[in-house]
Amino acid sequence: MNNKICDLLKIKSPIISGGMVWCSGWKLASAVSNQGGLGLIGAGSMLPDVLREHIKKCKQATNNTFGVNIPMMNPNSSIHIDIVIEEKVKVVFTSAGNPATYTKKLKDNGIIVVHVVANEKFALKAQDAGVDAIVCEGFEAGGHNGKEETTTLVLINQLAGKLNIPIIVAGGIATGEQILAMMVLGAEGVQIGSLFAASKESSAHDNFKKAVIDAKEGDTMLFLRKLSPTRLLKGGHYDKIQAAEQRGASKEELLGIIGKGKTKLGMFEGDMEEGELEIGQVSSMINEILSVEEIFAKLRKEYSEALARMSSISKSI
Amino acid sequence: MNNKICDLLKIKSPIISGGMVWCSGWKLASAVSNQGGLGLIGAGSMLPDVLREHIKKCKQATNNTFGVNIPMMNPNSSIHIDIVIEEKVKVVFTSAGNPATYTKKLKDNGIIVVHVVANEKFALKAQDAGVDAIVCEGFEAGGHNGKEETTTLVLINQLAGKLNIPIIVAGGIATGEQILAMMVLGAEGVQIGSLFAASKESSAHDNFKKAVIDAKEGDTMLFLRKLSPTRLLKGGHYDKIQAAEQRGASKEELLGIIGKGKTKLGMFEGDMEEGELEIGQVSSMINEILSVEEIFAKLRKEYSEALARMSSISKSI
Repeated sequence: MNNKICDLLKIKSPIISGGMVWCSGWKLASAVSNQGGLGLIGAGSMLPDVLREHIKKCKQATNNTFGVNIPMMNPNSSIHIDIVIEEKVKVVFTSAGNPATYTKKLKDNGIIVVHVVANEKFALKAQDAGVDAIVCEGFEAGGHNGKEETTTLVLINQLAGKLNIPIIVAGGIATGEQILAMMVLGAEGVQIGSLFAASKESSAHDNFKKAVIDAKEGDTMLFLRKLSPTRLLKGGHYDKIQAAEQRGASKEELLGIIGKGKTKLGMFEGDMEEGELEIGQVSSMINEILSVEEIFAKLRKEYSEALARMSSISKSI
Repeated sequence: MNNKICDLLKIKSPIISGGMVWCSGWKLASAVSNQGGLGLIGAGSMLPDVLREHIKKCKQATNNTFGVNIPMMNPNSSIHIDIVIEEKVKVVFTSAGNPATYTKKLKDNGIIVVHVVANEKFALKAQDAGVDAIVCEGFEAGGHNGKEETTTLVLINQLAGKLNIPIIVAGGIATGEQILAMMVLGAEGVQIGSLFAASKESSAHDNFKKAVIDAKEGDTMLFLRKLSPTRLLKGGHYDKIQAAEQRGASKEELLGIIGKGKTKLGMFEGDMEEGELEIGQVSSMINEILSVEEIFAKLRKEYSEALARMSSISKSI
């Protein structure tokens, strides 16, 4: 096996669990790392002390590499950066901000830096900023999303061959067949969100996990293009936001509906009436709450079977 | 080679050119069929006599199988159905309507029927209606689109294994790597639109073709969700529609902007100021106007090279 993401991150399996708000605590991250993938702690929903506690617990729960995802729009992001350096976290994923801001500081401290992008322009900018790899995330991903609405299938193919650093693909990945398909398109690894958000080890509320596995096709939709495009799951304040956008609501009105603390209310406290529920389009394909061990077994089986079927695929077209 | 779409349609290559309004006349369809794929004539922008003329000319230009795409929302669709029967066209793709309407009549006349869908629900309905295959088309496709906004990557994986009939995948396909990736996900064929819309043999106006090859990422966007979701290319009345939707325009107001004959004005007559320009997200990846022969050579080379690279892909994850 010769996989640049596994080599870079010193992991056995090129499967990364997204650092999702209210889902990706030390339990999920360590479980993924213990399976040989890379587990990410999601700093976006953590106060500095909480992040430090999760890092410490993750170290106790796994001897394997794990990482932290730091969204730069979080007001505590510079404190989060100091904490991952102090705690000697080996891998940091930065997102929602300029990759030039922290890359040098992190790398000077021996940390591997991966930056999340949703378009070619920022992928090239991240490479120029010196990151070690990028996550390219398509329109089908849950939560915050790119303004161009480029889907994973188009984005990965557009980027492959244009970068000198390896690509991790995200958005729309929930099966081993999809992982293999993304490798055909030039990805070296995958970052999976929704499937792990609904796992047993996810910190999300059971109400949220049940809503994810009950989701049908068309039950997630991209909203909030006037603010920051965000994919929401039906339930919570989805209907209110949809109705407001249909009548042409202003930024201010939308900000009023969103309010504060709504993702915590929905995803962590389980309020399915008023909270904000963020999940990917693949939620329609997730039908049970599995453990991380079961998820890895499923993905590995599907991947192997898909690879075996390749022998009967047309040799030419 | 054992490919169900090639066997069903009696073609050599599982590459189908979409039956696109103002692009897919006899020249494009026969050129694709002459390359061993399936060329489709797009009846959606043709009056009955024009359709009959294109079918007759296509028969003269190729001895290979070709087909006709009939959008059922077209007011002439029942006349179009009679024409394809009279002209003994071998393959008909139906779209934008109920597959139960014409499938039996077409099949009773020995015609192979393929129906275009954008979600699982209609895929199952089409299978029940007795169609021979389906096209599953994702969010990234140009022109008319599904309400669920499911991307090709999610839609194909969701459907594969749930149908007894073969799947042709559409939306976001412009390279041989993508064709191979879709086969990994269970597709047996691909329907390609944008790449052929910008080909030398396309009937579209040169101004439109140039706009397609100049398109950058983010230059197509899905609009008109209140009417029928449609992916438009920047230029023409794109800005007017975007502005109207941002202020919450009603259906009536949107219909007023769309007016009549705007796709002809934009795509066929080359009015880049007032016309409607429909193209897929992959337009950002198309950089030159190629002949159909050159397109097939490119796709075949990319497919073979991607298949060869598979030998170095991880055997397990």
